[in-house]
Amino acid sequence: MGKEKYVLGFDADDTLWVNEVYYQEAEHEFCRLLSVYNSAEEISEKLFNTEMQNLKIYGFGTKGFMLSMIETALKLSKQEVSQKVLDNIIQIGKNMLNKPVVLLEGVKNVLEILSSRGYRLILATKGDMIDQQRKLKMSGIETFFDHIEIMSNKSEADYLKLLSHLNLKANNFLMTGNSVKSDIIPVINIGANAIHIPYHTTWQHEEIKGNNALGNFKTLNNISELLDILDL
Amino acid sequence: MGKEKYVLGFDADDTLWVNEVYYQEAEHEFCRLLSVYNSAEEISEKLFNTEMQNLKIYGFGTKGFMLSMIETALKLSKQEVSQKVLDNIIQIGKNMLNKPVVLLEGVKNVLEILSSRGYRLILATKGDMIDQQRKLKMSGIETFFDHIEIMSNKSEADYLKLLSHLNLKANNFLMTGNSVKSDIIPVINIGANAIHIPYHTTWQHEEIKGNNALGNFKTLNNISELLDILDL
Repeated sequence: MGKEKYVLGFDADDTLWVNEVYYQEAEHEFCRLLSVYNSAEEISEKLFNTEMQNLKIYGFGTKGFMLSMIETALKLSKQEVSQKVLDNIIQIGKNMLNKPVVLLEGVKNVLEILSSRGYRLILATKGDMIDQQRKLKMSGIETFFDHIEIMSNKSEADYLKLLSHLNLKANNFLMTGNSVKSDIIPVINIGANAIHIPYHTTWQHEEIKGNNALGNFKTLNNISELLDILDL
Repeated sequence: MGKEKYVLGFDADDTLWVNEVYYQEAEHEFCRLLSVYNSAEEISEKLFNTEMQNLKIYGFGTKGFMLSMIETALKLSKQEVSQKVLDNIIQIGKNMLNKPVVLLEGVKNVLEILSSRGYRLILATKGDMIDQQRKLKMSGIETFFDHIEIMSNKSEADYLKLLSHLNLKANNFLMTGNSVKSDIIPVINIGANAIHIPYHTTWQHEEIKGNNALGNFKTLNNISELLDILDL
Protein backbone atom coordinates (compact mmCIF):
# COMPACT_ATOMS: atom_id res chain seq x y z
CA MET A 1 0.00 0.00 0.00
CA GLY A 2 1.00 3.61 -0.23
CA LYS A 3 2.43 3.67 -3.74
CA GLU A 4 -0.62 4.78 -5.65
CA LYS A 5 -2.86 7.44 -4.19
CA TYR A 6 -6.06 5.88 -2.97
CA VAL A 7 -9.33 7.73 -2.81
CA LEU A 8 -10.28 7.26 0.83
CA GLY A 9 -13.79 6.40 1.95
CA PHE A 10 -14.76 6.73 5.59
CA ASP A 11 -17.73 5.41 7.49
CA ALA A 12 -19.02 7.94 10.04
CA ASP A 13 -20.86 6.39 13.01
CA ASP A 14 -18.34 4.78 15.38
CA THR A 15 -15.55 5.31 12.87
CA LEU A 16 -15.31 9.10 13.05
CA TRP A 17 -17.66 9.87 15.93
CA VAL A 18 -19.46 8.23 18.84
CA ASN A 19 -22.83 6.73 17.94
CA GLU A 20 -23.68 3.22 19.12
CA VAL A 21 -23.13 4.20 22.76
CA TYR A 22 -26.01 6.67 22.49
CA TYR A 23 -28.29 3.94 21.12
CA GLN A 24 -27.27 1.63 23.94
CA GLU A 25 -27.93 4.30 26.56
CA ALA A 26 -31.34 4.93 24.99
CA GLU A 27 -32.15 1.23 24.94
CA HIS A 28 -31.06 0.87 28.55
CA GLU A 29 -33.43 3.67 29.54
CA PHE A 30 -36.18 2.11 27.40
CA CYS A 31 -35.77 -1.23 29.21
CA ARG A 32 -35.90 0.53 32.56
CA LEU A 33 -39.16 2.27 31.61
CA LEU A 34 -40.73 -1.06 30.66
CA SER A 35 -39.21 -3.13 33.44
CA VAL A 36 -42.61 -3.88 34.99
CA TYR A 37 -43.50 -5.87 31.87
CA ASN A 38 -40.40 -7.93 31.25
CA SER A 39 -36.66 -8.43 31.78
CA ALA A 40 -34.24 -6.08 30.07
CA GLU A 41 -32.96 -8.96 27.98
CA GLU A 42 -36.38 -9.88 26.64
CA ILE A 43 -37.35 -6.26 26.03
CA SER A 44 -34.13 -5.73 24.07
CA GLU A 45 -34.80 -8.82 22.02
CA LYS A 46 -38.36 -7.74 21.22
CA LEU A 47 -37.15 -4.26 20.30
CA PHE A 48 -34.52 -5.69 17.97
CA ASN A 49 -37.11 -7.93 16.30
CA THR A 50 -39.43 -4.97 15.80
CA GLU A 51 -36.56 -2.93 14.33
CA MET A 52 -35.72 -5.71 11.90
CA GLN A 53 -39.36 -6.05 10.83
CA ASN A 54 -39.52 -2.31 10.21
CA LEU A 55 -36.10 -1.90 8.61
CA LYS A 56 -37.44 -2.19 5.09
CA ILE A 57 -39.87 0.71 5.48
CA TYR A 58 -38.06 2.82 8.11
CA GLY A 59 -34.43 2.34 7.09
CA PHE A 60 -31.57 3.08 9.50
CA GLY A 61 -31.54 5.95 11.95
CA THR A 62 -33.05 7.43 15.06
CA LYS A 63 -36.59 8.18 13.85
CA GLY A 64 -37.17 4.56 12.90
CA PHE A 65 -35.64 3.55 16.23
CA MET A 66 -38.10 5.83 18.04
CA LEU A 67 -41.08 4.42 16.16
CA SER A 68 -39.92 0.87 16.86
CA MET A 69 -39.52 1.66 20.58
CA ILE A 70 -43.09 3.01 20.71
CA GLU A 71 -44.45 0.00 18.82
CA THR A 72 -42.55 -2.41 21.07
CA ALA A 73 -43.81 -0.66 24.20
CA LEU A 74 -47.42 -0.96 23.02
CA LYS A 75 -47.02 -4.61 22.02
CA LEU A 76 -45.05 -5.72 25.04
CA SER A 77 -47.47 -4.13 27.53
CA LYS A 78 -50.51 -5.41 25.64
CA GLN A 79 -51.40 -1.74 25.16
CA GLU A 80 -51.19 -1.04 28.89
CA VAL A 81 -48.06 1.09 28.83
CA SER A 82 -48.83 4.52 30.23
CA GLN A 83 -49.02 7.59 28.04
CA LYS A 84 -46.38 9.12 30.30
CA VAL A 85 -43.93 6.37 29.38
CA LEU A 86 -44.68 6.84 25.66
CA ASP A 87 -44.02 10.52 26.09
CA ASN A 88 -40.71 9.64 27.78
CA ILE A 89 -39.77 7.42 24.84
CA ILE A 90 -40.28 10.31 22.42
CA GLN A 91 -38.09 12.42 24.67
CA ILE A 92 -35.36 9.77 24.68
CA GLY A 93 -35.32 9.90 20.89
CA LYS A 94 -35.33 13.68 20.72
CA ASN A 95 -32.41 13.77 23.13
CA MET A 96 -30.50 11.43 20.82
CA LEU A 97 -31.17 13.81 17.94
CA ASN A 98 -29.73 16.67 19.97
CA LYS A 99 -26.61 14.90 21.27
CA PRO A 100 -23.30 16.64 20.80
CA VAL A 101 -20.98 15.15 18.19
CA VAL A 102 -17.95 13.60 19.86
CA LEU A 103 -15.13 12.77 17.46
CA LEU A 104 -13.08 9.67 18.17
CA GLU A 105 -9.45 10.16 19.16
CA GLY A 106 -7.14 11.19 16.34
CA VAL A 107 -9.88 11.69 13.76
CA LYS A 108 -9.47 15.41 13.20
CA ASN A 109 -5.69 15.21 13.07
CA VAL A 110 -5.66 12.30 10.62
CA LEU A 111 -8.21 13.88 8.27
CA GLU A 112 -6.30 17.14 8.38
CA ILE A 113 -3.07 15.42 7.37
CA LEU A 114 -4.72 13.35 4.63
CA SER A 115 -6.46 16.39 3.26
CA SER A 116 -3.29 18.48 3.28
CA ARG A 117 -1.45 15.70 1.42
CA GLY A 118 -3.97 15.92 -1.38
CA TYR A 119 -5.97 12.78 -0.67
CA ARG A 120 -9.54 12.84 -1.89
CA LEU A 121 -11.79 11.98 1.06
CA ILE A 122 -15.31 10.56 0.79
CA LEU A 123 -17.76 10.16 3.65
CA ALA A 124 -19.98 7.13 3.10
CA THR A 125 -22.53 6.58 5.82
CA LYS A 126 -25.90 5.03 6.52
CA GLY A 127 -28.59 6.62 8.68
CA ASP A 128 -31.16 9.39 8.58
CA MET A 129 -30.10 12.05 6.11
CA ILE A 130 -31.05 15.03 8.23
CA ASP A 131 -29.42 13.59 11.34
CA GLN A 132 -26.17 12.72 9.58
CA GLN A 133 -26.08 16.18 8.03
CA ARG A 134 -26.56 17.73 11.46
CA LYS A 135 -23.74 15.63 12.91
CA LEU A 136 -21.45 16.46 10.03
CA LYS A 137 -22.13 20.17 10.40
CA MET A 138 -21.42 20.07 14.14
CA SER A 139 -18.37 17.83 13.73
CA GLY A 140 -16.00 20.48 12.42
CA ILE A 141 -14.62 17.99 9.86
CA GLU A 142 -17.10 18.55 7.01
CA THR A 143 -14.67 20.64 4.98
CA PHE A 144 -12.14 17.81 4.71
CA PHE A 145 -14.50 15.79 2.54
CA ASP A 146 -14.83 16.10 -1.22
CA HIS A 147 -18.06 14.17 -1.27
CA ILE A 148 -20.68 13.08 1.25
CA GLU A 149 -22.75 10.03 0.44
CA ILE A 150 -25.60 9.20 2.78
CA MET A 151 -26.64 5.69 1.81
CA SER A 152 -29.82 3.81 2.62
CA ASN A 153 -27.78 0.62 2.64
CA LYS A 154 -24.17 -0.51 2.17
CA SER A 155 -24.47 -3.49 -0.12
CA GLU A 156 -22.08 -4.31 -2.94
CA ALA A 157 -24.53 -2.72 -5.36
CA ASP A 158 -24.56 0.47 -3.29
CA TYR A 159 -20.78 0.71 -3.31
CA LEU A 160 -20.64 0.02 -7.03
CA LYS A 161 -23.11 2.84 -7.58
CA LEU A 162 -21.02 5.17 -5.43
CA LEU A 163 -17.83 4.35 -7.32
CA SER A 164 -19.53 4.77 -10.67
CA HIS A 165 -21.03 8.08 -9.54
CA LEU A 166 -17.59 9.31 -8.45
CA ASN A 167 -15.96 7.85 -11.55
CA LEU A 168 -13.56 5.73 -9.47
CA LYS A 169 -11.95 2.37 -10.11
CA ALA A 170 -12.52 -0.19 -7.37
CA ASN A 171 -8.83 -0.94 -6.87
CA ASN A 172 -8.20 2.75 -6.31
CA PHE A 173 -10.73 3.02 -3.49
CA LEU A 174 -9.89 2.33 0.15
CA MET A 175 -12.75 2.22 2.64
CA THR A 176 -12.20 2.55 6.38
CA GLY A 177 -14.89 1.63 8.88
CA ASN A 178 -15.87 -0.16 12.06
CA SER A 179 -18.43 -2.56 10.63
CA VAL A 180 -17.11 -5.70 8.97
CA LYS A 181 -20.55 -6.32 7.54
CA SER A 182 -21.11 -2.87 6.04
CA ASP A 183 -17.69 -1.31 5.54
CA ILE A 184 -15.43 -4.27 4.78
CA ILE A 185 -17.03 -7.34 3.17
CA PRO A 186 -19.06 -5.63 0.41
CA VAL A 187 -16.10 -3.37 -0.38
CA ILE A 188 -13.68 -6.27 -0.74
CA ASN A 189 -16.21 -8.25 -2.72
CA ILE A 190 -16.30 -5.59 -5.43
CA GLY A 191 -12.52 -5.55 -5.70
CA ALA A 192 -11.88 -2.43 -3.65
CA ASN A 193 -9.77 -2.18 -0.50
CA ALA A 194 -10.85 -1.94 3.12
CA ILE A 195 -9.45 -1.26 6.54
CA HIS A 196 -11.25 -2.32 9.67
CA ILE A 197 -11.03 -0.25 12.83
CA PRO A 198 -13.16 -2.05 15.40
CA TYR A 199 -15.16 0.00 17.84
CA HIS A 200 -15.55 -1.33 21.35
CA THR A 201 -19.23 -2.04 20.79
CA THR A 202 -21.22 -3.02 17.71
CA TRP A 203 -24.95 -3.00 16.99
CA GLN A 204 -26.34 -6.53 16.80
CA HIS A 205 -27.50 -5.96 13.19
CA GLU A 206 -23.93 -5.22 12.14
CA GLU A 207 -22.42 -8.25 13.84
CA ILE A 208 -20.99 -11.01 11.72
CA LYS A 209 -21.51 -14.51 13.04
CA GLY A 210 -18.90 -17.11 12.24
CA ASN A 211 -15.94 -16.66 10.01
CA ASN A 212 -17.69 -16.41 6.66
CA ALA A 213 -16.55 -14.40 3.69
CA LEU A 214 -13.78 -12.56 5.50
CA GLY A 215 -11.45 -11.58 2.73
CA ASN A 216 -8.05 -10.04 2.99
CA PHE A 217 -8.15 -6.78 4.89
CA LYS A 218 -6.08 -5.06 7.55
CA THR A 219 -7.35 -4.36 11.03
CA LEU A 220 -6.05 -1.32 12.86
CA ASN A 221 -6.31 -0.29 16.50
CA ASN A 222 -7.18 3.31 15.74
CA ILE A 223 -7.45 5.78 12.91
CA SER A 224 -3.97 7.24 13.51
CA GLU A 225 -2.44 3.97 12.32
CA LEU A 226 -3.93 4.70 8.91
CA LEU A 227 -1.09 7.18 8.39
CA ASP A 228 1.46 4.35 8.75
CA ILE A 229 -0.44 2.21 6.28
CA LEU A 230 -0.28 5.08 3.78
CA ASP A 231 3.41 5.70 4.55
CA LEU A 232 2.69 9.20 5.82
CA MET B 1 -36.49 28.62 -24.53
CA GLY B 2 -35.62 25.53 -26.48
CA LYS B 3 -32.47 26.70 -28.30
CA GLU B 4 -29.85 25.39 -25.92
CA LYS B 5 -30.26 22.00 -24.32
CA TYR B 6 -31.21 22.41 -20.71
CA VAL B 7 -30.37 19.89 -18.04
CA LEU B 8 -33.81 19.18 -16.62
CA GLY B 9 -34.46 18.89 -12.88
CA PHE B 10 -37.72 17.42 -11.63
CA ASP B 11 -39.30 17.50 -8.22
CA ALA B 12 -40.96 14.16 -7.37
CA ASP B 13 -43.84 14.43 -4.86
CA ASP B 14 -46.91 15.91 -6.57
CA THR B 15 -44.87 16.69 -9.67
CA LEU B 16 -44.24 13.15 -10.89
CA TRP B 17 -46.42 11.14 -8.52
CA VAL B 18 -49.27 11.52 -6.02
CA ASN B 19 -48.14 12.39 -2.50
CA GLU B 20 -49.91 15.18 -0.64
CA VAL B 21 -53.29 13.44 -1.01
CA TYR B 22 -51.96 10.54 1.08
CA TYR B 23 -50.87 12.94 3.81
CA GLN B 24 -54.27 14.60 3.77
CA GLU B 25 -56.06 11.27 4.00
CA ALA B 26 -53.83 10.32 6.92
CA GLU B 27 -54.46 13.62 8.66
CA HIS B 28 -58.18 13.26 8.13
CA GLU B 29 -58.10 9.84 9.78
CA PHE B 30 -55.92 11.24 12.58
CA CYS B 31 -58.46 13.99 13.28
CA ARG B 32 -61.25 11.43 13.31
CA LEU B 33 -59.39 9.31 15.87
CA LEU B 34 -58.94 12.33 18.14
CA SER B 35 -62.35 13.89 17.54
CA VAL B 36 -63.40 13.41 21.19
CA TYR B 37 -60.70 15.91 22.19
CA ASN B 38 -61.11 18.70 19.69
CA SER B 39 -62.40 19.87 16.31
CA ALA B 40 -60.65 18.67 13.16
CA GLU B 41 -59.53 22.20 12.46
CA GLU B 42 -57.85 22.64 15.82
CA ILE B 43 -56.28 19.19 15.74
CA SER B 44 -54.85 19.92 12.29
CA GLU B 45 -53.45 23.21 13.51
CA LYS B 46 -51.81 21.60 16.54
CA LEU B 47 -50.38 18.85 14.37
CA PHE B 48 -48.93 21.39 11.96
CA ASN B 49 -47.38 23.34 14.84
CA THR B 50 -45.81 20.17 16.23
CA GLU B 51 -44.45 19.29 12.78
CA MET B 52 -42.90 22.72 12.43
CA GLN B 53 -41.32 22.50 15.88
CA ASN B 54 -39.84 19.11 14.98
CA LEU B 55 -38.82 19.91 11.41
CA LYS B 56 -35.27 20.80 12.37
CA ILE B 57 -34.57 17.43 13.98
CA TYR B 58 -36.92 15.17 11.98
CA GLY B 59 -36.70 16.71 8.52
CA PHE B 60 -39.35 16.03 5.87
CA GLY B 61 -41.05 12.70 5.36
CA THR B 62 -43.43 10.15 6.76
CA LYS B 63 -41.48 8.97 9.82
CA GLY B 64 -41.29 12.49 11.22
CA PHE B 65 -44.99 12.92 10.40
CA MET B 66 -45.77 9.75 12.37
CA LEU B 67 -43.77 10.89 15.38
CA SER B 68 -45.43 14.31 15.28
CA MET B 69 -48.88 12.69 15.12
CA ILE B 70 -48.09 10.58 18.20
CA GLU B 71 -46.72 13.59 20.07
CA THR B 72 -49.74 15.70 19.15
CA ALA B 73 -52.14 12.95 20.25
CA LEU B 74 -50.44 12.73 23.64
CA LYS B 75 -50.35 16.50 24.11
CA LEU B 76 -53.85 17.20 22.86
CA SER B 77 -55.45 14.53 25.04
CA LYS B 78 -53.40 15.53 28.06
CA GLN B 79 -51.97 12.01 27.91
CA GLU B 80 -55.40 10.43 27.95
CA VAL B 81 -55.43 9.15 24.38
CA SER B 82 -55.87 5.39 24.39
CA GLN B 83 -53.05 3.03 23.52
CA LYS B 84 -55.33 1.60 20.85
CA VAL B 85 -55.48 4.98 19.11
CA LEU B 86 -51.70 5.34 19.27
CA ASP B 87 -51.40 1.93 17.73
CA ASN B 88 -53.78 3.06 14.98
CA ILE B 89 -51.63 6.11 14.32
CA ILE B 90 -48.57 3.92 13.79
CA GLN B 91 -50.64 1.84 11.39
CA ILE B 92 -51.74 4.95 9.47
CA GLY B 93 -48.07 5.82 8.96
CA LYS B 94 -47.06 2.31 7.96
CA ASN B 95 -49.87 2.26 5.41
CA MET B 96 -48.51 5.49 3.94
CA LEU B 97 -45.08 3.86 3.62
CA ASN B 98 -46.65 0.97 1.73
CA LYS B 99 -48.84 2.99 -0.65
CA PRO B 100 -48.61 2.24 -4.33
CA VAL B 101 -46.83 4.83 -6.46
CA VAL B 102 -49.31 6.55 -8.76
CA LEU B 103 -47.69 8.59 -11.52
CA LEU B 104 -49.41 11.80 -12.58
CA GLU B 105 -50.89 11.90 -16.05
CA GLY B 106 -48.37 12.20 -18.87
CA VAL B 107 -45.29 11.77 -16.69
CA LYS B 108 -44.01 8.52 -18.12
CA ASN B 109 -44.59 9.59 -21.69
CA VAL B 110 -42.87 12.96 -21.24
CA LEU B 111 -39.83 11.52 -19.48
CA GLU B 112 -39.54 8.85 -22.15
CA ILE B 113 -39.52 11.47 -24.91
CA LEU B 114 -37.06 13.74 -23.10
CA SER B 115 -34.76 10.86 -22.38
CA SER B 116 -34.88 9.60 -25.98
CA ARG B 117 -34.03 13.12 -27.21
CA GLY B 118 -30.85 13.05 -25.16
CA TYR B 119 -31.89 15.37 -22.36
CA ARG B 120 -30.08 14.82 -19.08
CA LEU B 121 -32.71 14.33 -16.36
CA ILE B 122 -32.15 14.94 -12.65
CA LEU B 123 -34.57 14.02 -9.88
CA ALA B 124 -34.31 16.51 -7.02
CA THR B 125 -36.61 15.74 -4.13
CA LYS B 126 -37.04 16.25 -0.41
CA GLY B 127 -38.29 13.58 1.98
CA ASP B 128 -37.12 10.41 3.70
CA MET B 129 -34.34 8.82 1.70
CA ILE B 130 -35.53 5.24 2.08
CA ASP B 131 -39.12 6.16 1.25
CA GLN B 132 -38.20 8.17 -1.83
CA GLN B 133 -35.96 5.34 -3.01
CA ARG B 134 -38.81 2.88 -2.56
CA LYS B 135 -41.17 5.12 -4.55
CA LEU B 136 -38.64 5.62 -7.29
CA LYS B 137 -38.05 1.89 -7.58
CA MET B 138 -41.77 1.18 -7.80
CA SER B 139 -42.42 4.07 -10.17
CA GLY B 140 -40.97 2.47 -13.29
CA ILE B 141 -39.32 5.78 -14.24
CA GLU B 142 -36.03 5.42 -12.35
CA THR B 143 -34.03 4.55 -15.46
CA PHE B 144 -34.85 7.85 -17.16
CA PHE B 145 -32.81 9.77 -14.60
CA ASP B 146 -29.09 10.37 -14.80
CA HIS B 147 -28.89 11.46 -11.21
CA ILE B 148 -31.09 11.23 -8.13
CA GLU B 149 -30.64 13.85 -5.44
CA ILE B 150 -32.58 13.38 -2.22
CA MET B 151 -32.25 16.69 -0.41
CA SER B 152 -32.89 17.53 3.23
CA ASN B 153 -33.97 20.98 2.12
CA LYS B 154 -34.39 22.98 -1.09
CA SER B 155 -32.82 26.32 -0.28
CA GLU B 156 -30.71 28.36 -2.68
CA ALA B 157 -27.59 26.93 -1.02
CA ASP B 158 -28.87 23.39 -1.59
CA TYR B 159 -29.47 24.04 -5.28
CA LEU B 160 -26.06 25.68 -5.65
CA LYS B 161 -24.48 22.61 -4.09
CA LEU B 162 -26.39 20.33 -6.45
CA LEU B 163 -25.32 22.32 -9.52
CA SER B 164 -21.71 22.41 -8.37
CA HIS B 165 -21.78 18.67 -7.69
CA LEU B 166 -23.16 18.01 -11.18
CA ASN B 167 -20.81 20.56 -12.71
CA LEU B 168 -23.70 22.55 -14.21
CA LYS B 169 -24.10 26.22 -14.94
CA ALA B 170 -27.21 27.78 -13.41
CA ASN B 171 -28.49 29.21 -16.69
CA ASN B 172 -28.32 25.75 -18.21
CA PHE B 173 -30.53 24.19 -15.54
CA LEU B 174 -34.32 24.08 -15.75
CA MET B 175 -36.23 22.89 -12.70
CA THR B 176 -39.84 21.73 -12.90
CA GLY B 177 -41.97 21.33 -9.79
CA ASN B 178 -45.25 21.96 -8.03
CA SER B 179 -43.97 24.01 -5.09
CA VAL B 180 -43.31 27.70 -5.73
CA LYS B 181 -41.47 27.86 -2.41
CA SER B 182 -39.16 24.88 -2.97
CA ASP B 183 -38.94 24.32 -6.71
CA ILE B 184 -39.26 27.82 -8.18
CA ILE B 185 -38.13 30.75 -6.02
CA PRO B 186 -34.74 29.41 -4.85
CA VAL B 187 -34.00 28.16 -8.37
CA ILE B 188 -34.73 31.52 -9.96
CA ASN B 189 -32.82 33.32 -7.23
CA ILE B 190 -29.60 31.50 -8.15
CA GLY B 191 -30.00 32.39 -11.81
CA ALA B 192 -31.40 29.08 -13.01
CA ASN B 193 -34.74 28.50 -14.75
CA ALA B 194 -37.96 27.10 -13.36
CA ILE B 195 -41.33 25.89 -14.51
CA HIS B 196 -44.24 25.67 -12.16
CA ILE B 197 -46.86 22.95 -12.55
CA PRO B 198 -49.35 23.50 -9.73
CA TYR B 199 -50.89 20.47 -8.07
CA HIS B 200 -54.49 20.72 -6.96
CA THR B 201 -53.48 20.72 -3.32
CA THR B 202 -50.38 21.98 -1.50
CA TRP B 203 -49.03 21.30 1.99
CA GLN B 204 -49.40 24.35 4.22
CA HIS B 205 -45.62 24.48 4.77
CA GLU B 206 -45.06 24.89 1.03
CA GLU B 207 -47.61 27.62 0.58
CA ILE B 208 -46.46 31.10 -0.31
CA LYS B 209 -48.39 33.94 1.25
CA GLY B 210 -48.63 37.20 -0.61
CA ASN B 211 -46.90 38.06 -3.81
CA ASN B 212 -43.32 38.24 -2.61
CA ALA B 213 -40.26 37.39 -4.61
CA LEU B 214 -42.07 35.83 -7.51
CA GLY B 215 -39.63 36.15 -10.34
CA ASN B 216 -40.13 35.38 -13.95
CA PHE B 217 -41.21 31.79 -14.49
CA LYS B 218 -43.73 29.96 -16.62
CA THR B 219 -46.69 28.11 -15.19
CA LEU B 220 -48.01 25.08 -17.04
CA ASN B 221 -51.22 23.11 -16.65
CA ASN B 222 -49.54 19.73 -16.84
CA ILE B 223 -46.22 18.08 -17.54
CA SER B 224 -47.08 17.35 -21.19
CA GLU B 225 -46.93 21.08 -21.94
CA LEU B 226 -43.23 20.93 -21.09
CA LEU B 227 -42.68 19.40 -24.53
CA ASP B 228 -44.09 22.52 -26.17
CA ILE B 229 -41.87 24.74 -24.08
CA LEU B 230 -38.87 22.74 -25.26
CA ASP B 231 -40.09 22.81 -28.88
CA LEU B 232 -40.44 19.02 -28.97
